[in-house]
Amino acid sequence: MNVNVGFIGLGIMGKPMALNLIRGGYPLRVYGRRVESMEPLTAAGAQACASPAEVARNADLIFIMVSDTQDVEQVILGPEGVISGARPGCTVVDMSTISPAATRSLAAQLTARGVEMLDAPVSGGETEAVNGALSIMVGGKPEVFTLVKPLFERLGKNIVYIGGNGTGQLAKACNQILVTLSIEGVAEAFTFARKNGVDPGRVREALLGGFAGNKSLEVQGKRMLDHDFRPGFKVRLHQKDLRIIMETAHQMGLALPGSALVAQNMNALMGSGEGDLDSSALVNVIERLNETYITAPLHKG
Amino acid sequence: MNVNVGFIGLGIMGKPMALNLIRGGYPLRVYGRRVESMEPLTAAGAQACASPAEVARNADLIFIMVSDTQDVEQVILGPEGVISGARPGCTVVDMSTISPAATRSLAAQLTARGVEMLDAPVSGGETEAVNGALSIMVGGKPEVFTLVKPLFERLGKNIVYIGGNGTGQLAKACNQILVTLSIEGVAEAFTFARKNGVDPGRVREALLGGFAGNKSLEVQGKRMLDHDFRPGFKVRLHQKDLRIIMETAHQMGLALPGSALVAQNMNALMGSGEGDLDSSALVNVIERLNETYITAPLHKG
Repeated sequence: MNVNVGFIGLGIMGKPMALNLIRGGYPLRVYGRRVESMEPLTAAGAQACASPAEVARNADLIFIMVSDTQDVEQVILGPEGVISGARPGCTVVDMSTISPAATRSLAAQLTARGVEMLDAPVSGGETEAVNGALSIMVGGKPEVFTLVKPLFERLGKNIVYIGGNGTGQLAKACNQILVTLSIEGVAEAFTFARKNGVDPGRVREALLGGFAGNKSLEVQGKRMLDHDFRPGFKVRLHQKDLRIIMETAHQMGLALPGSALVAQNMNALMGSGEGDLDSSALVNVIERLNETYITAPLHKG
Repeated sequence: MNVNVGFIGLGIMGKPMALNLIRGGYPLRVYGRRVESMEPLTAAGAQACASPAEVARNADLIFIMVSDTQDVEQVILGPEGVISGARPGCTVVDMSTISPAATRSLAAQLTARGVEMLDAPVSGGETEAVNGALSIMVGGKPEVFTLVKPLFERLGKNIVYIGGNGTGQLAKACNQILVTLSIEGVAEAFTFARKNGVDPGRVREALLGGFAGNKSLEVQGKRMLDHDFRPGFKVRLHQKDLRIIMETAHQMGLALPGSALVAQNMNALMGSGEGDLDSSALVNVIERLNETYITAPLHKG
């Protein structure tokens, strides 16, 4: 199929995803807010555009990968936005992680112009983006999903259709609830071990093979042990995802006590100027709370 | 090596573990509080004893698998306890999940009589006990661990030496902190999904293959979706483990905010008369809190 594809948002995640589409044989028209962000893409054969509207002008599919709800709203509805360039019959595929309610509203506004929308947020970081190994959770019409699926297969491995518009974002929110509480668990377990004179690294090894083993213990746990908080997935993005979850919970009248607690810890990290660290820096909050530092040397009793 | 082995505590976990030792070629002397609990073992060739002291009398190794701290204290120190029968040079291997501080105290009292002790709590349930596939976390002297290791290999697959007496219990506590917060995460994610009109089963499938996937989502998540709370691992044992963790935290002056929150939810389950359900029934607390039931049918909007 000869399909014209646009890609908007060329940051840590968007850039390797766009490159994977080019490698997959889809010549792209791209737009990034920072002009220099477009250079690696034009070097790979993409055509740079001056605005989201210009990307949309001749596109059948327009991918968006930006940071937050208002960024997506700006890209779609703002001046020189996608909606002012998009032709009826084309599809907007938003792969950002944003508000499910805002997603439903955007989908309704696009549908009114004859434009389809999928929400397709991803799980996985830069490494998975580079390797085309993201998990992708998709909301929207099933026939539109079927149309876009070959392109998703260039970007990810675990591609799951959930339901109508916004349900991809809801599944991603569930993903973040699980990850959030897992990281809190690792941070509390390691601090508990260290306070009791046990090497947290030994505990990590002991538990990785068992029922309690999970990716957070493996990946974020390793970062905690090394106090290596180069991102990875930044605290400010994790805090943003938790804001979306807690806003949605607020709107629905839903209590999520565990998620709310960890959201407070993420707030504390932001307030300590640690927003650009990897979100495994959550352990800093538990360590400081207890004045117990997991990397401090253990003295034999 | 011709080694005389005793086994005390023949419940859901102890019985299959003792049977695996017999199958491994270790003829056992056994004791269970309920006389009938010894029958499957004597049928398999074990010799029934009238008390822990009698089990200990000629034993080189004495395994204990009971429920709680005071049960182990009773078995070791009580009237007709292990300590009154054990010979100097023998080893007590406590595989129960109990207090790390009490473990250190018991080890000291046994050492004063020339008796060694290992704490070797396990992760995994009845299925893993039956299959000899438990994870075993061991505290005590390394040379004693080496001695007992061939028998551990009859009981488990992931066998890790942690450090001195009590450190096996500390590692197990870390294990339970991780599992506890994972189960809370699954319960909150499923309730979030259902409240927003998304099938939690679909969310589970979508997330199992990705970064957020873990054993709690797989195993406890499935039980939650089916509201099938036949144990498995009972709420009252999970509450007991959390009590040990929070007692230890109290004694150390250590704040574990996430673990403390879930401990309260486990308390609520106990107060609702649900102590004998599987601990995945934690979802009941989140569902009732929100009057949102994940098994209720979804109506299309």
